[in-house]
Amino acid sequence: MAVTIKDVAKKANVAPSTVSRVISDNPRISDATKKRVRKAMKELGYHPNVNARNLAIRSSQAIGVIMPSSAETSLQNPFFPEVLRGIGSMALETEYSLYVSTGGDETQSFEEVKRMVFGNRVDGIILLYSRRDDPIMNFLIKEEFPFVVVGKPYKKESQITYVDNDNILASKKITEHLISLGHKRIAYLGGTTDLVVTMDRLDGYKQALEAANIPINDKFIIHDEFLRSSGRKAVEKLFALNEPPTAIVVADDLMSLGVMNMLEELGIECPEDVSITSFNNLYLSELTRPSLTTVDIQIYNLGIQSAKALIERLKSKTEPVKRVIVPFEIKYRNSTKKIDQ
Amino acid sequence: MAVTIKDVAKKANVAPSTVSRVISDNPRISDATKKRVRKAMKELGYHPNVNARNLAIRSSQAIGVIMPSSAETSLQNPFFPEVLRGIGSMALETEYSLYVSTGGDETQSFEEVKRMVFGNRVDGIILLYSRRDDPIMNFLIKEEFPFVVVGKPYKKESQITYVDNDNILASKKITEHLISLGHKRIAYLGGTTDLVVTMDRLDGYKQALEAANIPINDKFIIHDEFLRSSGRKAVEKLFALNEPPTAIVVADDLMSLGVMNMLEELGIECPEDVSITSFNNLYLSELTRPSLTTVDIQIYNLGIQSAKALIERLKSKTEPVKRVIVPFEIKYRNSTKKIDQ
Repeated sequence: MAVTIKDVAKKANVAPSTVSRVISDNPRISDATKKRVRKAMKELGYHPNVNARNLAIRSSQAIGVIMPSSAETSLQNPFFPEVLRGIGSMALETEYSLYVSTGGDETQSFEEVKRMVFGNRVDGIILLYSRRDDPIMNFLIKEEFPFVVVGKPYKKESQITYVDNDNILASKKITEHLISLGHKRIAYLGGTTDLVVTMDRLDGYKQALEAANIPINDKFIIHDEFLRSSGRKAVEKLFALNEPPTAIVVADDLMSLGVMNMLEELGIECPEDVSITSFNNLYLSELTRPSLTTVDIQIYNLGIQSAKALIERLKSKTEPVKRVIVPFEIKYRNSTKKIDQ
Repeated sequence: MAVTIKDVAKKANVAPSTVSRVISDNPRISDATKKRVRKAMKELGYHPNVNARNLAIRSSQAIGVIMPSSAETSLQNPFFPEVLRGIGSMALETEYSLYVSTGGDETQSFEEVKRMVFGNRVDGIILLYSRRDDPIMNFLIKEEFPFVVVGKPYKKESQITYVDNDNILASKKITEHLISLGHKRIAYLGGTTDLVVTMDRLDGYKQALEAANIPINDKFIIHDEFLRSSGRKAVEKLFALNEPPTAIVVADDLMSLGVMNMLEELGIECPEDVSITSFNNLYLSELTRPSLTTVDIQIYNLGIQSAKALIERLKSKTEPVKRVIVPFEIKYRNSTKKIDQ
């Protein structure tokens, strides 16, 4: 039988409500009584039920982390373990636990978020994505529940704290690198169009082309999930065109891996026949042959900064809203080549 | 202001305790009353506090997942996201949430586990490792708290449900493969010696050598963390020997990656100068040059099976204790070569 508050109360010769007050460290209880009650708790091996205590102090000491799709799908992309690693490191330092979403579709994730919020299961939430018209983000705003976004909120809501890279600039720079190598037929392979990061990187790509007076070809723009299989499919599509591209700006390393696999199967050589640039600088981007020229977005640091911003807000309600822009760096490797004139 | 049980009680014209009973679906409340209270809850936008409800029904609908070291360190090895992916998929299907440990050292993890258990934060726990004399495992046994181990418990406790591969056999088979290629100077690079998986794989390696009458050389056996950096350090040590090995049985793909990097830096060629076999079949094992001959331990499936076993146990206290052995398969690739006589 589990030891209850009543058992402790009996042993310490106080009312059960006094035991509860000792557990929540109520200042109205004398130190002598606290000492007696705690001694009784220890002797009986009683551990205060944290749920009960949470009701009193209203803190779960946990952070909810919401992934853009099911854990099963998201965790295929090393971006998510790496950002979790950063969040976990900050959570450890500040003694927070992590509550990770498993939800498959938007409805399931939304239900999970509601359970987290209304159930006081977490003190705050980190959204690991930013989507257009996201019902989850709208809900968190309406409930005034503390949250931080990894990525840039779609509406430029001034009251949302977020941590992001300057994805427009990064994409512009890496596209300019391809243009400087003589490429004109440059394709763009991005994530799904509801993700702000996809649209930002598309923006930067278009800005670079426009600045160089290269017309934008809609057939060269493909959107799909940030998965290896999407890279394979895109290559099939692009190289079935009468005039295929000579370079591809890929918005994700895992996609690039699929792109390179499929190119190899089709006998198209990289970088001899087609140059590839990528995003994220996952460790796999050094392992591919050729190694990938990619944008290092500092994923681990994105995790650290997002957890830091959330915890600062949890500790102080008056903490100002922040926009944290983590710097990027292009890693020049071997997947691009000057075009033969 | 948040809507409280008292507001609902007032609106529905019942006692607050009746509202609580409706929330916990107490059969002693009439259907008519339930209907009236639920209508009032809906109209007022009241969401029952899940903590309060948990106190009643004693279920958190969450699973605790404990990693062997801090999230920061563990998540560097793709084994953990992959096993989490399997657990997440089963959790989603059965509507459980995941509570992931962040703890750095054993003391921190133990504190987290105690918070999970005494706080009713989780219904059951999955340990993603098996260690000799693990205080956490001993604690869970003592508390009779439902848990499942990914790996083989050290003491052959008959009451522990676990999911594992036959690591002794897998290691014996892959060492025999090297022996069949003519290798005699075969080194073993494993994880830390407190991990059961390390000792099992060492056992299989020794069994294969003994069966082939090859003496065991202690200088050829190295233990370190399952990290890339450990692979690098081990190569430095092994190739400083007067008679370095011609083959290495590495117990982890990420370690193998470090091994290959360092070999390349030292100008030692794989597989020409040294053959390497590995464990886990992470997707990176196909990307290395040469690609790695490695044991596919079906990590995702280990995750699925562990969550399945735990949830079966949570649903039925009389569920029998199980030992689930996930089959392995050796993937023969290009990192081994017949030795020149």
